[in-house]
Amino acid sequence: MSQIDKVLARIDADLDNALARLFDLIKIRSISTDPAYKADCRQAAEWLARELTSIGIEASVRDTAGHPMVVGHRKSGKPGPHVLFYGHYDVQPVDPLNLWETDPFEPRLVTRADGSKMIVARGSADDKGQLMTFVEAARAYIAETGDLPVDVTVLFEGEEESGSPSLHPFLNANKDELTCDLALVCDTSMWDKDTPAISIMLRGMVGDEIIVRAANRDLHSGSYGGSAQNPNHIVAGIIAGLHDETGRITLPGFYDGVQDLPESLAKMWAELGFSVEDYLGEIGLKYPRGEKGRLPLEHIWTRPTAEVNGMWGGYQGPGSKTVIPAEAHAKFTFRLVGEQDPEKIRASFRAYVQSRIPADCTVEFLAKDGSPALSLDPTMPAVAKGQAALEAEWGKPAALIGMGGSIPIVGDFKRMLGMDSLLIGFGLEDDRIHSPNEKYELRSFHKGIRSWARVLAELAKG
Amino acid sequence: MSQIDKVLARIDADLDNALARLFDLIKIRSISTDPAYKADCRQAAEWLARELTSIGIEASVRDTAGHPMVVGHRKSGKPGPHVLFYGHYDVQPVDPLNLWETDPFEPRLVTRADGSKMIVARGSADDKGQLMTFVEAARAYIAETGDLPVDVTVLFEGEEESGSPSLHPFLNANKDELTCDLALVCDTSMWDKDTPAISIMLRGMVGDEIIVRAANRDLHSGSYGGSAQNPNHIVAGIIAGLHDETGRITLPGFYDGVQDLPESLAKMWAELGFSVEDYLGEIGLKYPRGEKGRLPLEHIWTRPTAEVNGMWGGYQGPGSKTVIPAEAHAKFTFRLVGEQDPEKIRASFRAYVQSRIPADCTVEFLAKDGSPALSLDPTMPAVAKGQAALEAEWGKPAALIGMGGSIPIVGDFKRMLGMDSLLIGFGLEDDRIHSPNEKYELRSFHKGIRSWARVLAELAKG
Repeated sequence: MSQIDKVLARIDADLDNALARLFDLIKIRSISTDPAYKADCRQAAEWLARELTSIGIEASVRDTAGHPMVVGHRKSGKPGPHVLFYGHYDVQPVDPLNLWETDPFEPRLVTRADGSKMIVARGSADDKGQLMTFVEAARAYIAETGDLPVDVTVLFEGEEESGSPSLHPFLNANKDELTCDLALVCDTSMWDKDTPAISIMLRGMVGDEIIVRAANRDLHSGSYGGSAQNPNHIVAGIIAGLHDETGRITLPGFYDGVQDLPESLAKMWAELGFSVEDYLGEIGLKYPRGEKGRLPLEHIWTRPTAEVNGMWGGYQGPGSKTVIPAEAHAKFTFRLVGEQDPEKIRASFRAYVQSRIPADCTVEFLAKDGSPALSLDPTMPAVAKGQAALEAEWGKPAALIGMGGSIPIVGDFKRMLGMDSLLIGFGLEDDRIHSPNEKYELRSFHKGIRSWARVLAELAKG
Repeated sequence: MSQIDKVLARIDADLDNALARLFDLIKIRSISTDPAYKADCRQAAEWLARELTSIGIEASVRDTAGHPMVVGHRKSGKPGPHVLFYGHYDVQPVDPLNLWETDPFEPRLVTRADGSKMIVARGSADDKGQLMTFVEAARAYIAETGDLPVDVTVLFEGEEESGSPSLHPFLNANKDELTCDLALVCDTSMWDKDTPAISIMLRGMVGDEIIVRAANRDLHSGSYGGSAQNPNHIVAGIIAGLHDETGRITLPGFYDGVQDLPESLAKMWAELGFSVEDYLGEIGLKYPRGEKGRLPLEHIWTRPTAEVNGMWGGYQGPGSKTVIPAEAHAKFTFRLVGEQDPEKIRASFRAYVQSRIPADCTVEFLAKDGSPALSLDPTMPAVAKGQAALEAEWGKPAALIGMGGSIPIVGDFKRMLGMDSLLIGFGLEDDRIHSPNEKYELRSFHKGIRSWARVLAELAKG
């Protein structure tokens, strides 16, 4: 029996205990965005530091201005790459609580009719279940072989769900300690329940909010209608003018740095058998809306977007109120790809908005943070090692995929520490993260642990 | 001292008491559009019925499917015209509450540096202050002379600010009781603070509300942005497409029945010395927005308009939330002139909206009532009597003007009861009706009471 097979056998034998430990962690109500749960967040950090130290990864709770970080190391001077593993122990709020079938912090294992099992609880998938896949893989490796196959640093954050305010200062202050050869991040999904995936493209984002003001007070639309500017119409015009009839975004320079999909990726993605009917059907829609002439997966992964996440102005109550409001609002986010520059796009957006403001009206901008898109070079050796490990575990080649959303930590690792990230995760699209009745497949948890053991073994091969 | 002079003297002597009674009525929170204030609306009706009865106009509260009506009569068999006086006791909602300097339902009398006084409260002008000018005139007349100079019926409505759903059934059911020779309506404004006015043109109105629905739940804009329909963009496109670049409304057939301004009126209005700079300057704006090539008074009085009174969709809280909402909303009102047909315009609007709804999305319409525009024959004898009474009180000829807003009741009186309406009111443009810090000039209240006493006396002259 090879070393890795022994490690895998130990993982299988220890699964019930691993699950019990995950349940202990889930029970800690570490909601980072709500100050009422400050002590719980610290408790989760302390639990993790104890757990890491107990398995042989010397770890400590590290204070920040917000919730603490957990940092652990096990350096045996191995010749392979030194990896940093990242996860987050904080979770989303649980409201609306009445939509949960049971207490969000009382994890339960539910068996379906077909025998498959899922762990239902807040944080089961995002990200406690995922980060514990790595911890349990390390535990089995050290217990079975006396060491890890590569040097490992662990970083667990407690503010991922609340904008990571302490992350930049912490990375800056601990650059030397945290800079490794490669980061391993477990906060993403599989392609589908049988197909593992490595995410190699992450869209960036830039956000802005506008307040358009006209008259110095709300007006009666009978007295002033047709004569005074109506901010609702101005904001609507701004929103409507953002896209042309083919779905392209009209801002000058917006597509600078956007490349067409490389032939090789287009081919690989075509083979993934993505069904836009299923994808949209699940949310009650039928027809993709994005730029015409693009693949549905391009819309989601490799084309930039402009979305209004909120707009409002005037009367919203029941019945009618014949008012011309003094102001109207909209919140915009742009998802970025390739080399698009968030600040250039912000400037182009603001110039466009300004050009549509009548001379006697004003606009105020409330900036939101911006981050460029990120992509991993698919020919990087670590990608091939990750693919090999995942294929060995799941029996299918790992898909190299894009991600519609953003994972800011990956950009921070790249820009602040010069470190690439291998994004491997075992979530599924239907895990209901951020929603009531969040779940994580027991299979994801079990095979996730096994996958990380294999990834560590592959990386050690040098 | 003539009879009318005695009545006027009594009005002057009783002003403080009249003001106290108005304050009592204002304190009743009769917001008709919000079901939470149902009991308050009834309380206002009961207060008015008691008040009318106490001064000698036998009145009662009359139930409807919605808020009640108040009907009172004093018929002494006078030879002159039998008049119906109309007002409404309901008021607009008060949001945004934070912009009110004091409680909207705690009326206060504010004295300006120049000694002029204003009554600040919701409903002070629209319409409680105005309707009480008539009640107080009647009180003084009866107290001083033992009777009114003409037979009077009073009708107070409690749903004017919420589309008057019960009005048609009520007028139909009480046709004989309510049909008089002439209606007197006090819900309009003076030309300016020194120039009284009779409104002879009223814009009509038709309203509609849309709910556009796309996905079956709120979506993450990272996962679905650029792919799934965003109702905010659909609603914004509908709003933006309503006007072309010259300010004209694009709905097919919208301008059917709209006539150009007659030469004679254009001449009279030019002499009114209307300053668009002052008109817009007072609300903090500079440039008229309406159709190009039209007089500013046309924009306000004789051109039709399309306004969005409210729009909303998605996240409105602080910070950002990367959501694509499942639905978005907008409330529209169209002001109508000439022979425009409300139902034809509603149909044209709905066809236009429907044409902009993607195939996998839906729209729901929440209709609001519609009423065509109205105009009064300026050669009618009652107009001359009204002008004479107003000139005697204010020392200036009364202007015959248009009105931007709608008073649907005037159309209903005409079409259902065959009754013309004399529209005389004492509001001013800066009364902030429907807005925070609504006010009514004490001078309007005082001289308004005196004006109605004079109008009644003139009408009795036969």
